[in-house]
Amino acid sequence: MLADAGVVLTQAERDDIEVADFGLGRVEEIGLQLVVYVNTQRVCAKELVLFPHQTCPEHRHPPVAGEPGKEETFRCRTGTVHLHVDGHDEIVLRPGEQFTIMPDTLHWFQAGPEGAIVSEFSTRSRDETDVFTDPAIVR
Amino acid sequence: MLADAGVVLTQAERDDIEVADFGLGRVEEIGLQLVVYVNTQRVCAKELVLFPHQTCPEHRHPPVAGEPGKEETFRCRTGTVHLHVDGHDEIVLRPGEQFTIMPDTLHWFQAGPEGAIVSEFSTRSRDETDVFTDPAIVR
Repeated sequence: MLADAGVVLTQAERDDIEVADFGLGRVEEIGLQLVVYVNTQRVCAKELVLFPHQTCPEHRHPPVAGEPGKEETFRCRTGTVHLHVDGHDEIVLRPGEQFTIMPDTLHWFQAGPEGAIVSEFSTRSRDETDVFTDPAIVR
Repeated sequence: MLADAGVVLTQAERDDIEVADFGLGRVEEIGLQLVVYVNTQRVCAKELVLFPHQTCPEHRHPPVAGEPGKEETFRCRTGTVHLHVDGHDEIVLRPGEQFTIMPDTLHWFQAGPEGAIVSEFSTRSRDETDVFTDPAIVR
């Protein structure tokens, strides 16, 4: 999917693609594939790859170590993603469309029938501090 | 060039592509074309488009308002970019390769013979505070 979208990865990045199943063991339904380009103290950039109808479950990024939580901009590259953000109606992102999710704001998202590739531009990623609504989830 | 690289832009983004000639009036030689996806208080993401052999002249991003200067990761999407960063040998980035430039570090870059598209992931962009080595330059 990434190569078809014109995304070129190094061999090391291909070997390091992260598959997140959130500890639920049904990754095709609830899961996410990630390529992390960079994650420094200040900046993070990733590609999120979603299979058709795959869902990333509801969570938020709380403040950590005196800093506001993670701020994320999702930019759709291919396919369609349905984004649900606390305080907003459903947001549908098509290729070239984007939305910025402010810190500590509950959100979840699901790919449309073709799946999706979404670029994420954000502050530092500390996935282990994410707070998921479903208590069964382990990140 | 962007469409060929699989980058989809909205009409508003196409209308807003910034051409920086750095006040020198010879943009094909010294210049840069930019698509700014997002630039918040904390995060910025852009595509930089360089024509063949086009050069972005030497500059640095100093501390502003009590914050460290801008930190930038350049990720080459297409073509080749030759990156010159103070304290490093020349860095040649090919598609899928990237380099992070720390704050307040002098750097300049030039595209190879095919031009280049480079994604930039950074902290907040405040172009007006950049310090260029050539005193003739106006940003």
